[in-house]
Amino acid sequence: MTKQKILIQLDTDNRSSVFDSITAIDSGIDHLLCHHDVTPQNVTEIVHGAIFTRGPADLKSTAIFVGGSDVGFGEQVFERIKGSFFGPCRVSAMLDSNGSNTTAAAAVLSAAKHVNLAGIQATVLAGTGPVGARIAEILARSGASKVKITSRSAERAADTCQIIQQKTEINDVLVPTVLDNVESIADAVGESSIVFACGGAGITLWPKSHWPISQCRVAVDVNAVPPLGIESIGATDSATEIDGTICYGAIGVGGIKMKIHKLAIQKLFESNEQMLDIVEIYQLGQSLVEKNQ
Amino acid sequence: MTKQKILIQLDTDNRSSVFDSITAIDSGIDHLLCHHDVTPQNVTEIVHGAIFTRGPADLKSTAIFVGGSDVGFGEQVFERIKGSFFGPCRVSAMLDSNGSNTTAAAAVLSAAKHVNLAGIQATVLAGTGPVGARIAEILARSGASKVKITSRSAERAADTCQIIQQKTEINDVLVPTVLDNVESIADAVGESSIVFACGGAGITLWPKSHWPISQCRVAVDVNAVPPLGIESIGATDSATEIDGTICYGAIGVGGIKMKIHKLAIQKLFESNEQMLDIVEIYQLGQSLVEKNQ
Amino acid sequence: MTKQKILIQLDTDNRSSVFDSITAIDSGIDHLLCHHDVTPQNVTEIVHGAIFTRGPADLKSTAIFVGGSDVGFGEQVFERIKGSFFGPCRVSAMLDSNGSNTTAAAAVLSAAKHVNLAGIQATVLAGTGPVGARIAEILARSGASKVKITSRSAERAADTCQIIQQKTEINDVLVPTVLDNVESIADAVGESSIVFACGGAGITLWPKSHWPISQCRVAVDVNAVPPLGIESIGATDSATEIDGTICYGAIGVGGIKMKIHKLAIQKLFESNEQMLDIVEIYQLGQSLVEKNQ
Repeated sequence: MTKQKILIQLDTDNRSSVFDSITAIDSGIDHLLCHHDVTPQNVTEIVHGAIFTRGPADLKSTAIFVGGSDVGFGEQVFERIKGSFFGPCRVSAMLDSNGSNTTAAAAVLSAAKHVNLAGIQATVLAGTGPVGARIAEILARSGASKVKITSRSAERAADTCQIIQQKTEINDVLVPTVLDNVESIADAVGESSIVFACGGAGITLWPKSHWPISQCRVAVDVNAVPPLGIESIGATDSATEIDGTICYGAIGVGGIKMKIHKLAIQKLFESNEQMLDIVEIYQLGQSLVEKNQ
Repeated sequence: MTKQKILIQLDTDNRSSVFDSITAIDSGIDHLLCHHDVTPQNVTEIVHGAIFTRGPADLKSTAIFVGGSDVGFGEQVFERIKGSFFGPCRVSAMLDSNGSNTTAAAAVLSAAKHVNLAGIQATVLAGTGPVGARIAEILARSGASKVKITSRSAERAADTCQIIQQKTEINDVLVPTVLDNVESIADAVGESSIVFACGGAGITLWPKSHWPISQCRVAVDVNAVPPLGIESIGATDSATEIDGTICYGAIGVGGIKMKIHKLAIQKLFESNEQMLDIVEIYQLGQSLVEKNQ
Repeated sequence: MTKQKILIQLDTDNRSSVFDSITAIDSGIDHLLCHHDVTPQNVTEIVHGAIFTRGPADLKSTAIFVGGSDVGFGEQVFERIKGSFFGPCRVSAMLDSNGSNTTAAAAVLSAAKHVNLAGIQATVLAGTGPVGARIAEILARSGASKVKITSRSAERAADTCQIIQQKTEINDVLVPTVLDNVESIADAVGESSIVFACGGAGITLWPKSHWPISQCRVAVDVNAVPPLGIESIGATDSATEIDGTICYGAIGVGGIKMKIHKLAIQKLFESNEQMLDIVEIYQLGQSLVEKNQ
């Protein structure tokens, strides 16, 4: 008899995300076990409960999802999960704290519908946060020739570039760029064909007064709370051409983000060895786009 | 494919009510997402998780239930839920903190099996609490000519009457009545054909020494913990004639209360626009009684 | 219509055991209601929610599981559950805090495959804890002629023997035995044909230097964390003959433990009157062994 599909939904916040719960159910799981206030310290016992209950052949029907608002803390929990397995006694797991992986994958895939990423130049505005860094990583791995990461702080921009370089072993592509004044937006965009805005809620990174910039063919804003990061883009814009630039707002990439999220949950149950972080989740998104073409 | 029916069970207490969970499951929902310690402050994020995960056509398969022991606090949460929707991005919701709405509806419907509410005179003993006020509101809306609300405090009785008048815009029906001495019960009942006892657990409002009162044809006691509010009635009495008065105890109205509760949960999933408070829940109860006739 | 099978999983710890949740789902339940931080004080309201929602004929489809790391506290919660029923308004319940009952049953059943318990002599090393005391109780009830319970403390050994004697009304079988030095292991084992090691994680009770002891035909170690309680036994040993002694490690008894656990959950839903503690769970284990012969 096939085992019921159990998703253990771990949240690093003090309440389990209803968004993540409903998306999990809509992905076809049978039972959801929600746990909040999960930390690197207490996650091991949860993992042991997951791996020591079912036989090896059935472990693919148990999986773990890590969510919560703090992406860095979610990454620590995800690492500890990997370290809690015993050989074949393991279950698949997915990291998507604050929707960071599915959002980053959806943002890049949206742009990639319109341009070839190989050899492209790109700018990730306010790219030192978890979504921005993931977008930059995917661009570098996809063969971009230059990826500028902007920040108000030269140090943070340099740190983020270095972390991605170490992780990807791709050198001479990531370029830390200081952007501490909206008037300098044209310099920050420079020769980039695609621009992603990843700033905090309500912070305008690219004002209307400097719109459009002719080199930029696709612009994606992942901030859904107005005022938006790119003032000319509306949150629901989806492949909308505005003054010659193809534009996506946060809700505009939401459709593909949800599809990637559900596909990733389903992928967890194909074997007990899936560890889905940004690279794997972006690949899933690519397979989705190819299938729909 | 039809979406799974998800009920988000919100509890304002620090533990989700097992009673509400089992009743929800018996109403036919597929998945229950339980959240406790819910407040007007933290409910908005939960609501957003509910309304931003499924497409408009599928939102009728997600619904919210508000329970918990504090009815006033539950009302605040319910109001905040209504205020967290964005146009068509909304889900159905039901308020039944402490079983107040289903109990009040069941109590009035039990009495209405034996008398015509239009033009009737009624007394709601200790009627300033959430169940009593809801019973009085339903009686006023059903065309009662006079509804006395008793309290030990003249001020609380007057306040409760005023709140119901403002809400219903029905004047000259609700009569605040002081009852601070069980010896005055005959005056409090007066010409009322139906009497509801809504006092706290273990407080006798109508002692045996003053039983029966000839004008009263139906008496309903919603307190299940002895000593009961109407001393002559047993908790399991259900349409039991005692000395010429038709009597209902708390457990005696429990059967119809459970049916109303389940019908209300099912109603939530008919569309994404149901907001079930006392008026809507009483109407559901009426449809149930009519169907069974 | 048959009601959905609801298991109310109560945990005395501050997080519901994922191990217990998955095992419950694999036992065939439909819905799991998890509650943590359960105490004798707050369990009554949970029980009332369980017994007052469904009609008498349907109460067999609701059941309660008590788990958590503190067996003594779990026993208090279990007692309070029994005291919260009202006549026929009751549901089945099972106690298995820290896996104590299923582990003890599995350990004794493993040994009983190789020897006849009637008239046997046995030693339970470090037998004053919850698993050890349960093993000793089952041995006494199964007709053992002598059951030594060892402890570093004469008082604790005597107390445990007295509690089991009072509970079983079996006298002259249980023998409190001081074992405060591993060099005395041969005396502690004495004429015993079966030996169980129930010490804490990482405490060696029977060193290799004193292995084997010729009288001992079967040795079972319930400690899974090395160094193990019986140094010669590996955690995965299962009916493994080592120097003439048949040996079981903690993981070696795990298979039958899981089967007993699942069978016990299923038993809960046969009627609403099952109260499964060590005696009933051992009997279930026996029926399982007989069926498989």
